[in-house]
Amino acid sequence: MADSFIEKLKQKWNEDRFICIGLDSDFSKIPQSFKDQSSDSEVPIEGAIYEFNKSIIDSTHDLVCAYKINSAFYEADAQTWEAMLNTFYYIQRTYPEIPVILDAKRGDIGNTNQGYVKMAFETIKADAITIHPYLGQEANQPFLDQKDKGIIVLVRTSNEGAGEFQDLPVSGRPLYEIVAENVATKWNTNGNCAVVVGATYPEELKKVREIVGDMPILVPGIGAQGGDLEGVLANGLNKEKQGLIISSSRAIIYADDPRMAAQDLDQKISSFHRTK
Amino acid sequence: MADSFIEKLKQKWNEDRFICIGLDSDFSKIPQSFKDQSSDSEVPIEGAIYEFNKSIIDSTHDLVCAYKINSAFYEADAQTWEAMLNTFYYIQRTYPEIPVILDAKRGDIGNTNQGYVKMAFETIKADAITIHPYLGQEANQPFLDQKDKGIIVLVRTSNEGAGEFQDLPVSGRPLYEIVAENVATKWNTNGNCAVVVGATYPEELKKVREIVGDMPILVPGIGAQGGDLEGVLANGLNKEKQGLIISSSRAIIYADDPRMAAQDLDQKISSFHRTK
Repeated sequence: MADSFIEKLKQKWNEDRFICIGLDSDFSKIPQSFKDQSSDSEVPIEGAIYEFNKSIIDSTHDLVCAYKINSAFYEADAQTWEAMLNTFYYIQRTYPEIPVILDAKRGDIGNTNQGYVKMAFETIKADAITIHPYLGQEANQPFLDQKDKGIIVLVRTSNEGAGEFQDLPVSGRPLYEIVAENVATKWNTNGNCAVVVGATYPEELKKVREIVGDMPILVPGIGAQGGDLEGVLANGLNKEKQGLIISSSRAIIYADDPRMAAQDLDQKISSFHRTK
Repeated sequence: MADSFIEKLKQKWNEDRFICIGLDSDFSKIPQSFKDQSSDSEVPIEGAIYEFNKSIIDSTHDLVCAYKINSAFYEADAQTWEAMLNTFYYIQRTYPEIPVILDAKRGDIGNTNQGYVKMAFETIKADAITIHPYLGQEANQPFLDQKDKGIIVLVRTSNEGAGEFQDLPVSGRPLYEIVAENVATKWNTNGNCAVVVGATYPEELKKVREIVGDMPILVPGIGAQGGDLEGVLANGLNKEKQGLIISSSRAIIYADDPRMAAQDLDQKISSFHRTK
């Protein structure tokens, strides 16, 4: 079986799977039925979130190229953190062929990043992590040294105010292009890097695709954030018509029928592929 | 008693306290005596790290303007996380006048940052948090809205490779100056912002001080990282001869006598103050 993040991902792409579901589960938003049925009454929040995540995973595992779990939704208390760990372990045990991204957006100085490496890859056993570029390659080397793990660097984020620094002109080019270029040409000596570009910015995605070649691009912002799927596909696919991890969170996990919401997104992607 | 981060900090500065001790405690590096004496044999790592931190705090509390706790050293497992929480709670209970900084270097899109706000300020009850600037003010607004908390933005970090992006020229000025300027002139509407500049870069500190006025500057990198204390004081103090949080971690906490190491640093700062 494929073992590294990039091998697992490519295998999924070869099966025409491009969706990534973000399991950003918030106890206040999950259906009451999961709160009622939580199998562990001693840790009701932990149990309910875990059961909810499990139901999403079981009903969508054949449709995705990856799952993404954002630590911000889980680290405020011990029960939610435990639910997150158990969600990772469930996927690893049940669907080991599906890569799971820890969307933690970490980034400290080199020595200190060892702690985050241990958290992400020893404790959680994630297949990939998202990181901030601001401290540079030298600081992020402990992440980059993890050859079998995906190191996914923020380049052009999906939020409205992303341009404040990311678009600043550096010798006539926006900063995010320089970040993409450095990641592609300098940071990626182990072939384990990927970049993040928001689905809300298809033009910027086009530039980044030109810069990074066939490198995987994680594209959040489809669904609730209003990203442009057609634009993402037209501008983001690599020359093999692959290379994209198209991520949607709230629009799928809180849909009345999450599988149907995922299938709908999958079919839109398939029909785009067929017509090109 | 002073309640907000900035009030607590100013009170400490008025007492001529400028040292911040970084409680970056690593189980493999703490003295064997703490491992032997851990009061809780069911959670030996948690107990040993907590006792070690407590001993540092009890022996240095009258010398510091703040403590800083870097989450990277604690979040890889449940026992170390618990030791971190208990360290925060111990300071809050025993020395409530001392502000404690959660050095977590977080930063996601706005909606998602609410989770980090909850973690830092509801669960941990930290007085301040460090954040990445890369996603801009709009994304970081959930942090900036916490009026009584310190929001400490990375500007020019202490690591060797910090300049890769931070020094890139934007209209003739390095990026970090633009970040400092935006934080000082746009992000700081609640008067709760501060910035990070590494002690290893005294010239850059001088520029940042000119840009941010009297704003607090957290200066890590004194001690093991080889930061330049004289340069930091000459270039970093504000016009009231205050404004600096001078942070040292390993060089104090792993010293044979941590109090003596802290006193030594304190005396160097005092004698600089006296001669100016």
